[in-house]
Amino acid sequence: MKFSACQIANLLKGEVDGNPDVMVSRVSKIEEGESGTITFLANEKFTKYIYTTKASVVLINRSFVPEKNIKSTLIKVDDPYKSIAHLLEIYNKCIDKPSGIEKNSYIDKSVKKGKNIYVGTFAYIGKNVVIGDNTLIFPGTFIGNNVNIGSNTIIYPSVNIYEDCTIGNNCIIHAGSVIGSDGFGFAPNENKEFVKIAQIGNVIIEDNVEIGALVTIDRATMGSTIIRKGVKLDNHNHVAHNVEIGENTVIAAQTGIAGTAKIGKNCMIGGQVGISPHVKIADNTKIASQSGITKSILKKNTIIMGSPAFDMKDFHKSYIHFKALDKINKRLEKLEKNRTKK
Amino acid sequence: MKFSACQIANLLKGEVDGNPDVMVSRVSKIEEGESGTITFLANEKFTKYIYTTKASVVLINRSFVPEKNIKSTLIKVDDPYKSIAHLLEIYNKCIDKPSGIEKNSYIDKSVKKGKNIYVGTFAYIGKNVVIGDNTLIFPGTFIGNNVNIGSNTIIYPSVNIYEDCTIGNNCIIHAGSVIGSDGFGFAPNENKEFVKIAQIGNVIIEDNVEIGALVTIDRATMGSTIIRKGVKLDNHNHVAHNVEIGENTVIAAQTGIAGTAKIGKNCMIGGQVGISPHVKIADNTKIASQSGITKSILKKNTIIMGSPAFDMKDFHKSYIHFKALDKINKRLEKLEKNRTKK
Amino acid sequence: MKFSACQIANLLKGEVDGNPDVMVSRVSKIEEGESGTITFLANEKFTKYIYTTKASVVLINRSFVPEKNIKSTLIKVDDPYKSIAHLLEIYNKCIDKPSGIEKNSYIDKSVKKGKNIYVGTFAYIGKNVVIGDNTLIFPGTFIGNNVNIGSNTIIYPSVNIYEDCTIGNNCIIHAGSVIGSDGFGFAPNENKEFVKIAQIGNVIIEDNVEIGALVTIDRATMGSTIIRKGVKLDNHNHVAHNVEIGENTVIAAQTGIAGTAKIGKNCMIGGQVGISPHVKIADNTKIASQSGITKSILKKNTIIMGSPAFDMKDFHKSYIHFKALDKINKRLEKLEKNRTKK
Repeated sequence: MKFSACQIANLLKGEVDGNPDVMVSRVSKIEEGESGTITFLANEKFTKYIYTTKASVVLINRSFVPEKNIKSTLIKVDDPYKSIAHLLEIYNKCIDKPSGIEKNSYIDKSVKKGKNIYVGTFAYIGKNVVIGDNTLIFPGTFIGNNVNIGSNTIIYPSVNIYEDCTIGNNCIIHAGSVIGSDGFGFAPNENKEFVKIAQIGNVIIEDNVEIGALVTIDRATMGSTIIRKGVKLDNHNHVAHNVEIGENTVIAAQTGIAGTAKIGKNCMIGGQVGISPHVKIADNTKIASQSGITKSILKKNTIIMGSPAFDMKDFHKSYIHFKALDKINKRLEKLEKNRTKK
Repeated sequence: MKFSACQIANLLKGEVDGNPDVMVSRVSKIEEGESGTITFLANEKFTKYIYTTKASVVLINRSFVPEKNIKSTLIKVDDPYKSIAHLLEIYNKCIDKPSGIEKNSYIDKSVKKGKNIYVGTFAYIGKNVVIGDNTLIFPGTFIGNNVNIGSNTIIYPSVNIYEDCTIGNNCIIHAGSVIGSDGFGFAPNENKEFVKIAQIGNVIIEDNVEIGALVTIDRATMGSTIIRKGVKLDNHNHVAHNVEIGENTVIAAQTGIAGTAKIGKNCMIGGQVGISPHVKIADNTKIASQSGITKSILKKNTIIMGSPAFDMKDFHKSYIHFKALDKINKRLEKLEKNRTKK
Repeated sequence: MKFSACQIANLLKGEVDGNPDVMVSRVSKIEEGESGTITFLANEKFTKYIYTTKASVVLINRSFVPEKNIKSTLIKVDDPYKSIAHLLEIYNKCIDKPSGIEKNSYIDKSVKKGKNIYVGTFAYIGKNVVIGDNTLIFPGTFIGNNVNIGSNTIIYPSVNIYEDCTIGNNCIIHAGSVIGSDGFGFAPNENKEFVKIAQIGNVIIEDNVEIGALVTIDRATMGSTIIRKGVKLDNHNHVAHNVEIGENTVIAAQTGIAGTAKIGKNCMIGGQVGISPHVKIADNTKIASQSGITKSILKKNTIIMGSPAFDMKDFHKSYIHFKALDKINKRLEKLEKNRTKK
């Protein structure tokens, strides 16, 4: 697809400064811009590149005053970052979405199929599955019996969803993720062997959730593991049985949440964080990457760090002294010697 | 499936107190119990819920004496927790297991098939594979040439088992796990490039092992990577080439074990632990989550924590002072000033 | 395949000491050697085993002088370790490689197929994909539209490569890895919901790259996530959008690299390391396992450790004192008491 600067300016309610007929077909970064691409300037640090970029069109703030000559056509907008995001969204919607039921897929005859769905080759859809309208299921995906999937949801290739789980509307699940595998529950017997505790619950994923690639969300032992609406989970996250994650909480990659932990709303959790079993975390909590959360956080808006974690400012103070521990020890030795001398 | 309180009491050798004809079809948690479900009371903290739960049936200790009126039918047993686990097990066994060879699977003609096996659609079974009796292989699974799988084993969807590996009896491998991928072995050449060292060993998984979702177990460079009987590995574990994990050891999620490490029997290893190459860990060792094990642990029954790890009690002592390091520094400054004044 | 000691000696330009006609078909470790196997002695610690091993043939240094009688046939070479690696490589090349297009695969008619390729059963190859000569694509793999794959590359089962990505020559990608999933990019709106930022870039993997099992490499928001030639990534690595990893850098398992980080050439990065967004890491940097890199490392040849990381030697010094913090506190208390007494 090609668009002229003029067409884009109309879309974004912007103002063209330069050739309105120049055509672009792709988006570039300003420092790597090539002819035929559109880019944007939103961060002052990159201002220097506007004079050298080869991008044909640059989105720029209305208040921008150039210091030198600029070759690119400019489109002046209120907020270049929002404008480019808006443009990307439009671009993305224009991309050919796959559709229809591909020939070599397996769909049990009991499946309830919504309108306008896509089921890719080698996808397997078990008994009594319900698929909402406009939902895309890519090749090689496994959907177990009795799974319920909402509308406008995208399930990328090789995702595995075990029986009885529920996926909401407008969700995205990236390749290879596993939803509904057994929780890690065993009871020791008298021979120190571990006997499996049957895991008969399920996983409920509400609307507008995005799940990265190779994430695992275990089914509940009893009841449900619940991912509330708007949650975003990055790649390689591990969510154990009976966990609940509150609305609009965002979790970076490789974080693990142990059984029955309950995470609040609007939390921001860094990568490689570990959260212990049964812990409760209040709304709006922020947790630094690699932290270990061993106790409940009951106060909202807490910011914590460390393993085990405590207040982030205090952690930073302690860590400065940790780095200087050899000096602290020497200062102590000096005082001790001094004392002995007397 | 529906059961009456009376039927369940007979199964569990329990005693009914209430309506013996009430029917239940699912299991619930006591605090979330609904009509038509059975629940249990095993933990005193939850005692208050027995007076409000809507569960139709509650398993309870024979010694329990109610303080108020209870609506649910009670079944009195010796150990409600064991009883519910037993019930879950029975329930689980009654669930319809898939069976037979589904049409669109690929099974090489050299494969030796046990009795009563299941091979799902889009599963691929290579040359000379042996599959024991009653083993279930779910859709989309890849079993490489010469793999040997025991009896009563469950291989969930999209599991990949490379050639020459061996899986025991009564094992469970959850979705997306990879068994037998190449060990991470390279030798630098004169140009600082890394040249691959061929990985010609295999993986041996003994009986009664459960492996979570998205686990990797690399094949040995030479010889075997060995997972001994009764081991339980949680999701996202990484087991490198030539590792050996001893009987009945349990490892929580996202832990990584580097090449040639040897883990003892009956160890309990937390999540996100890292274990260095060639390290040996004695039987009955306990390792706290997020620890880093850089040296062998030769003494049995050790409990360690930290990165690098040391005795857990000592770690906790040190960590209390770490949190107070700013105060320690100020105390030191005070002494220093004091000394200078004199 | 069976080889005589004499044939192997010829291959390795070595000298036979013992029966030149003894036949071997497998490789073993010296301490586990069995009849019919070849092994090697490269590490002095294992010298004792040469007198007891049941291996039929042992590769040994030309300078080795036995202290007792040895049953095995010896082949004397300049460097036994290199010789065995060379032998493994030859062995590996002799193994039957799969070939041809298996019947139940899906290959779009627009795909450009190189000579002598393998496409396994249940593999899915989308529109306009290009596959170079001698490339192997195992069963159950998903290759999205417009993906370009070089020659002599191996894509193991269940790998998922999203549209528009590029894979070089002589690459290996192990089972279940995901290349080109969306970067983790969201912008908060006024309701504290996170709105997806479309991810329209791709992933470029250059030549001679090996990627372990269950690795994720996210596509760039715009532009490309780039893995330079010769890079080796171990299992469960996470590489976020717009990251660049320099030539011949090696990264151990379960490490995560956040968005737009730029890693230099010839770096060695341990397992479970976390690298923050936008960080730059100089060439030849070494990072200890479980470290957290929150700031750029501008000086080449730096060796760092800790979370947050600093100079490794300094970390070790500090950590020794950390372990002794309880004693340090007691020494401080003693000085304080002493002072009060006066």
